[in-house]
Amino acid sequence: MKLYELVGRDKTKGFSPFVWRIKMALAHKGLDYELVPLHFTEIKDALSFADSKTVPVLVDGDHAVSDSWDIACYLEDRYPGKPSLFNDRPAAKLFHYQLAQTLLMPLFRTIVADIFKVIDDQDKEYFRATREPRIKCTIEQAGEDLEESLMIFKGNLWPYSQFFKSDDYIGGDNPVYQDYALYGMFLWARATSSKKIVDDEDPIANWIMRMDQCFGGIGGQVQKIK
Amino acid sequence: MKLYELVGRDKTKGFSPFVWRIKMALAHKGLDYELVPLHFTEIKDALSFADSKTVPVLVDGDHAVSDSWDIACYLEDRYPGKPSLFNDRPAAKLFHYQLAQTLLMPLFRTIVADIFKVIDDQDKEYFRATREPRIKCTIEQAGEDLEESLMIFKGNLWPYSQFFKSDDYIGGDNPVYQDYALYGMFLWARATSSKKIVDDEDPIANWIMRMDQCFGGIGGQVQKIK
Repeated sequence: MKLYELVGRDKTKGFSPFVWRIKMALAHKGLDYELVPLHFTEIKDALSFADSKTVPVLVDGDHAVSDSWDIACYLEDRYPGKPSLFNDRPAAKLFHYQLAQTLLMPLFRTIVADIFKVIDDQDKEYFRATREPRIKCTIEQAGEDLEESLMIFKGNLWPYSQFFKSDDYIGGDNPVYQDYALYGMFLWARATSSKKIVDDEDPIANWIMRMDQCFGGIGGQVQKIK
Repeated sequence: MKLYELVGRDKTKGFSPFVWRIKMALAHKGLDYELVPLHFTEIKDALSFADSKTVPVLVDGDHAVSDSWDIACYLEDRYPGKPSLFNDRPAAKLFHYQLAQTLLMPLFRTIVADIFKVIDDQDKEYFRATREPRIKCTIEQAGEDLEESLMIFKGNLWPYSQFFKSDDYIGGDNPVYQDYALYGMFLWARATSSKKIVDDEDPIANWIMRMDQCFGGIGGQVQKIK
C-alpha cells in the first residue's frame, strides 16, 4: 500500500490531521504501507490519478481511495479479519462531523500562523490564497487574534474532558477510529505549533499520553517541524 | 416502575428533554411504568428520598436511580434481555456531553422565554431565580436576543444535517440512546415553543419524522402546552 501525505519544509514530517487518522488506523489494522510525501502545490498533479485534490489518498493494489472517512471504511471492509476500527460505524461517522465543526476549525484558526511557518516556501502563496478565505482574515491577523480562537477551542474540549474523567478511550477499553480522529488533531498541532492547547490537569492530557504509547509510539515521537 | 417527570401548567404534559430520553428508552426496552408529574417547586421535597434535585428519577422496586445517563445504564444492565439501548456505550456517553454543550445550551437560550410561559405560576419565581444566572441575562432579554441564539443553535446542527443525509438513525438502521437524547431535545422545544428550529429541507426534519413514528407515536403526539 501507498499512503500519500502532506509534509512541511522537512519532507520526512507529515502533519495533516486527516492523514494521521489513517496512519493510526493502518497501525490498528497491522497493515504495512509506504509513505509518499507531497507539498501542498504538488498535490493536484500527484493525486489527479485518484481524482482527489486532498490527502490522504491510499493506494492498495488496483484501488485508490481518497477522503479519510472513506479510507477508514475501505480498510474496515477490505480487511475484516484484522482488529476492527469501529465499535459502531454510524456513531463514528457522526463523530467525524462533530469534530470538524467544534474542534478542527477553531484549532485551525489558532495554529494557522504556526502552520504557515513550517510549510515549504513553494507552498506559501498557495496556502495563503486558499486558507485566508476559510478563516475570513489574513494569516497574520489570525496569529494576533489567537487568544480568542484558543479560548473557543479550549471551551469546546469540555465534552472530552468530562468523558476522559471516567473512560480511557472513546472506544472504551481500547482506542477506535474516533480516538484516532481526535488524536490526529493533536498531532497536527504538535507538529506545527508550540502553543499549549491542553492544560496539564485536563483528563484529555492523560488520554493523549495513552495515545502516545500506541503502536510503538508512532504518534508520541512527533515533534514540532523545524 | 415509577418515572418522576417535570410538567408545565397542564399536569399531563411533561417537557423535560432529560425525561423524554428515558421515556423513549423505556419504550425501546418495552417496559411499562407510571408517570409521577411534578412542578419545579415540588421537585426538591418529592425527590429527596432519591437524594436528587432533578428529574428524571426512576423507581424500580427497591431501586431509585437519578440522572438520565445513569438511568439509561441502569435499564441496560438490569434488563439485558430486552433490546439494547447502546451499540457502543462509551460513544453514547461522550455524545451526551457533546449534545449538552453544542445544542442544549443554545436551544435553552432560544426557548427560555417560551418555557417561562408554559410553566405553572407557582414555578415562575423559582425558574427565574435559578435559570437567569445560567443564561447570564433576564428571561425577557433572552427572548429579545433569540435571533442570535437561534442562529448559534442552527449552526451547531450542521454535523447532524450532514449525518442524516446518508444515515437513518445515529444507531444505523434502528434508533439507539443517542437518537433518543437528540430527539428528546426536539420534543422539549415542541412542547414549549412554536419557534421553527429546523428548516423543512434539512435532513434532520426527516429524521424527526421517523422518530415521531417510533413506539406508537409517543413523541409524535406531543404538542405545545397550552
